Amino acid sequence: MRIAMVGLGRMGANMRTRLRAREIDVVGYDRDPSVRDVDSLESMVDRLGPGPRIVWIMLPAGVVDDTLARLSPLLRGGDVVVDGGNSRWTDDAPRAGRLAARDIGYADCGVSGGVWGAEGGYGLMVGGAQADVSAIWPVLEALVPEDGSGLVHAGDVGAGHYAKMVHNGIEYALMEAYAEGYELLAAGSPVNNITEVFDAWRSGTVIRSWLLDLCTEALRADPGLARITGWVDDSGEGRWTVEAALDAAVPVPAISASLFARYASRQEDSPAMKLVAAMRHEFGGHPVHDAG
Amino acid sequence: MRIAMVGLGRMGANMRTRLRAREIDVVGYDRDPSVRDVDSLESMVDRLGPGPRIVWIMLPAGVVDDTLARLSPLLRGGDVVVDGGNSRWTDDAPRAGRLAARDIGYADCGVSGGVWGAEGGYGLMVGGAQADVSAIWPVLEALVPEDGSGLVHAGDVGAGHYAKMVHNGIEYALMEAYAEGYELLAAGSPVNNITEVFDAWRSGTVIRSWLLDLCTEALRADPGLARITGWVDDSGEGRWTVEAALDAAVPVPAISASLFARYASRQEDSPAMKLVAAMRHEFGGHPVHDAG
Amino acid sequence: MRIAMVGLGRMGANMRTRLRAREIDVVGYDRDPSVRDVDSLESMVDRLGPGPRIVWIMLPAGVVDDTLARLSPLLRGGDVVVDGGNSRWTDDAPRAGRLAARDIGYADCGVSGGVWGAEGGYGLMVGGAQADVSAIWPVLEALVPEDGSGLVHAGDVGAGHYAKMVHNGIEYALMEAYAEGYELLAAGSPVNNITEVFDAWRSGTVIRSWLLDLCTEALRADPGLARITGWVDDSGEGRWTVEAALDAAVPVPAISASLFARYASRQEDSPAMKLVAAMRHEFGGHPVHDAG
Amino acid sequence: MRIAMVGLGRMGANMRTRLRAREIDVVGYDRDPSVRDVDSLESMVDRLGPGPRIVWIMLPAGVVDDTLARLSPLLRGGDVVVDGGNSRWTDDAPRAGRLAARDIGYADCGVSGGVWGAEGGYGLMVGGAQADVSAIWPVLEALVPEDGSGLVHAGDVGAGHYAKMVHNGIEYALMEAYAEGYELLAAGSPVNNITEVFDAWRSGTVIRSWLLDLCTEALRADPGLARITGWVDDSGEGRWTVEAALDAAVPVPAISASLFARYASRQEDSPAMKLVAAMRHEFGGHPVHDAG
Repeated sequence: MRIAMVGLGRMGANMRTRLRAREIDVVGYDRDPSVRDVDSLESMVDRLGPGPRIVWIMLPAGVVDDTLARLSPLLRGGDVVVDGGNSRWTDDAPRAGRLAARDIGYADCGVSGGVWGAEGGYGLMVGGAQADVSAIWPVLEALVPEDGSGLVHAGDVGAGHYAKMVHNGIEYALMEAYAEGYELLAAGSPVNNITEVFDAWRSGTVIRSWLLDLCTEALRADPGLARITGWVDDSGEGRWTVEAALDAAVPVPAISASLFARYASRQEDSPAMKLVAAMRHEFGGHPVHDAG
Repeated sequence: MRIAMVGLGRMGANMRTRLRAREIDVVGYDRDPSVRDVDSLESMVDRLGPGPRIVWIMLPAGVVDDTLARLSPLLRGGDVVVDGGNSRWTDDAPRAGRLAARDIGYADCGVSGGVWGAEGGYGLMVGGAQADVSAIWPVLEALVPEDGSGLVHAGDVGAGHYAKMVHNGIEYALMEAYAEGYELLAAGSPVNNITEVFDAWRSGTVIRSWLLDLCTEALRADPGLARITGWVDDSGEGRWTVEAALDAAVPVPAISASLFARYASRQEDSPAMKLVAAMRHEFGGHPVHDAG
Repeated sequence: MRIAMVGLGRMGANMRTRLRAREIDVVGYDRDPSVRDVDSLESMVDRLGPGPRIVWIMLPAGVVDDTLARLSPLLRGGDVVVDGGNSRWTDDAPRAGRLAARDIGYADCGVSGGVWGAEGGYGLMVGGAQADVSAIWPVLEALVPEDGSGLVHAGDVGAGHYAKMVHNGIEYALMEAYAEGYELLAAGSPVNNITEVFDAWRSGTVIRSWLLDLCTEALRADPGLARITGWVDDSGEGRWTVEAALDAAVPVPAISASLFARYASRQEDSPAMKLVAAMRHEFGGHPVHDAG
Repeated sequence: MRIAMVGLGRMGANMRTRLRAREIDVVGYDRDPSVRDVDSLESMVDRLGPGPRIVWIMLPAGVVDDTLARLSPLLRGGDVVVDGGNSRWTDDAPRAGRLAARDIGYADCGVSGGVWGAEGGYGLMVGGAQADVSAIWPVLEALVPEDGSGLVHAGDVGAGHYAKMVHNGIEYALMEAYAEGYELLAAGSPVNNITEVFDAWRSGTVIRSWLLDLCTEALRADPGLARITGWVDDSGEGRWTVEAALDAAVPVPAISASLFARYASRQEDSPAMKLVAAMRHEFGGHPVHDAG
């Protein structure tokens, strides 16, 4: 089996490697000549066989639609495009509609596992019509762990990215949970052995998890986390999760708290807290900290 | 009428002034010779008349019990002690019990109004037995606004400080509300006129309040709050409010968020966010910000 | 001066009344024949004078664009449309652009004050170009309190609705603040006099506000709030505030908590809490509450 | 080796079984005659050997001190008491001090793993002086998983219960994270296959964990969780975690949100939301839902 892949950044390149190791031939295209197999989308498509063709898109969400506009004229009825990137789920249905007008199938695939998935296999959540998902199933099976676990057809178009979005929302709150616990151990507690506590938690406890494994490794590599600052970025999916919650009237206090903590981590100073300090000064004569 | 007052810090001294202006004579004692009327607790008590005596304590919560231990031997049955400071409400009942053993009355009085109360009158929430509260009622009436508003006998011993504690919990969340709104206006919004917006909100709107008046004054004095940093202290009452909520199983998400925002405002760097950054680096190879 | 008004629901009708009492003639149109002055948009526009015409739209956000599509062909260069409803601020710029193509001005006006504004005057936040805002200024002045307060030109197109949106976000958190405090007084506290405590807080304290006045009135009318259930709706503006915060990376823990509390108030049962109960049962054998 | 165990509830009885299977003889005492090995604390202590004796307490936190008061006269210098129950960590140091006055050692041991630990081994976090912890080390090794993992000497007296408390705080937030994600999948999402999504997440993803395994089992057993209600209890440790955070000025928004969600899950109606509904009715004439 041979498929095309557009986008060979860290994730795309790793997936190409994993697929090739499992008898799925990949013709990869990227803007960067040093990583690509072919020089153009045209050449890429030409290198695929005569039957229904599969094109896996692995690009930042912001450039997917432009790429599809250039790609779809090269495709024909029966072909299937998979968006394996981090697109917003609400973009999937309009996109699938445009492709369906030319009888091209579409599936959206949320991919989890980060840099570790290359070796151990990724977790995949797929959305799309049954026929399209069936067509790409062998590819999906080659990407997930050897035992076939970690793969789900979550629903119709959009369900894959929706499930991945929620996955990331959960991930934010899980990370916040361990982080709050860490700070409680670090701040004036009787525990003098934080790394060992995290390590011990990995076995036998209710809170054992892969993220806890990572915490322990990070703490072993940098005890006290002295070499890192508490500056944390966030990606679209965390925000989209909260927006989906707003739309569906679902309370998500822990997920939103996790996101807000990241926002705050990136502020030099908080405008909100400036006003609180100013109010306290106004009503109580409380001392304020002068800037500069 | 003449009463004794122990503790002549900013609040105590202001209250003495207000009482004296309203025909309540005050004999004040303080550690600081420059502000006190008498040199000792003994002299202070001696200066009171023969009838039931009233001693108003206006001290930091941490030294009230020591002061009462020194004061109560100087008092006799029928006297009444008022704690007008920021004691924790759970301290009131044991304290009243110790005094009751010597037939000395006790009332707890939460005082709101900050430095502004000196002129306009304070808001007072009183707890205690009816007889004790009646005995001090003229004093309370002299402290509140001229029209007699702002005064409530909230319940038995402890109710005054409890009501004041809740008042402060509400205050924290009100301040946080305006502060979050301020930051939303300051961060990339189409509003180019923040101070004027705050000023306009003071009239006709649902959110008008005294705190909004203070916000506006602060913004007028320092547009953009350039001269202040977002470092905010917190007092015991905010924490006690959340602890009372924990004990009573009452959800207080806004009050606790307000308190946590203050905690975060005082951190150079967040240990929790360090761990989140470290986790992201472990699973995704996301770049981290090196310390130093 | 004579203006047109489209939409004569509770708010529109009240505003028409207030304007007429202040020498601003209003020609009102509504779908409902029983409240309108004219039978069609055409008649409404015809009734305005020859000079630049002002049309005030007071409609639900969802029908504004359709109405504008029908209305704008009836208008000419120099006329000004005001959207005084609760439109999302991000809709203002595109809308203004469409009208500008025909040289018609546009201003967005956030209106606060609820049913009370009819008598005391509304709070108004206006966005738009200086010329358009100047054209409607006499109308705005007639709507706000007599002393001219409560009125601000907040910025360019969109700034009025943005400021109103933030106003509502603040409002949600203010209400939550008092509500959490109320529950703390109601749940096993020593305070036996909740309504009186709220009333006393209205004077002299840091937390006095118009919303606190309303709380007191509500508690007087229904002590213990026995006649009401804790089911609370939310409008678009609260959600938009949180979405604006997500877009601008502004932490809004108190505002979002207020919104989530409303969401939860409308749930018969919480799916999230079902899963938590199920997990506890799985790992600890903790008893669960059977449905039905 | 032979030790004594006081308290043979579900946890204590399971631990006795696990210890006996690993060559640690246990003499168990409980109020309940049907589960105990001896009829009194005296008999229990008598059955231990002549050397330093180990007594493992596995009782509800509320009765530990009374039991120790009865037990300690039966012990002698060099003996060691372990509290393996869910005591508050702040109780450990005073307790250790009382025992130390009689030269009796003390260790506090947090135990995680629920009903599953009996078979797979528990996670144990121990606090105490090195000599005391060394004395009980063979017992601890028999309780943790076969490979010796899951065991940590976390620090001095109190550190074991502190670490366990934080563990439970983290646990609350982890559970809330999955629960919020679940509700997002259940509420109007395109995902029609929630149980399969949870199952797939167990492999290859960033959010895989033991709690996720439990979620999946719960969803398999009761798809849609139709047979359970969202009523969730909380134990002391969650509350103590937030109190420890308050004392140490550590922001814990996710952990506190998890706790508040549980509080809300047990309310028939929310007093706070009643007041919000009442306020909305006052200012906007918004309809309210009448009680009954």
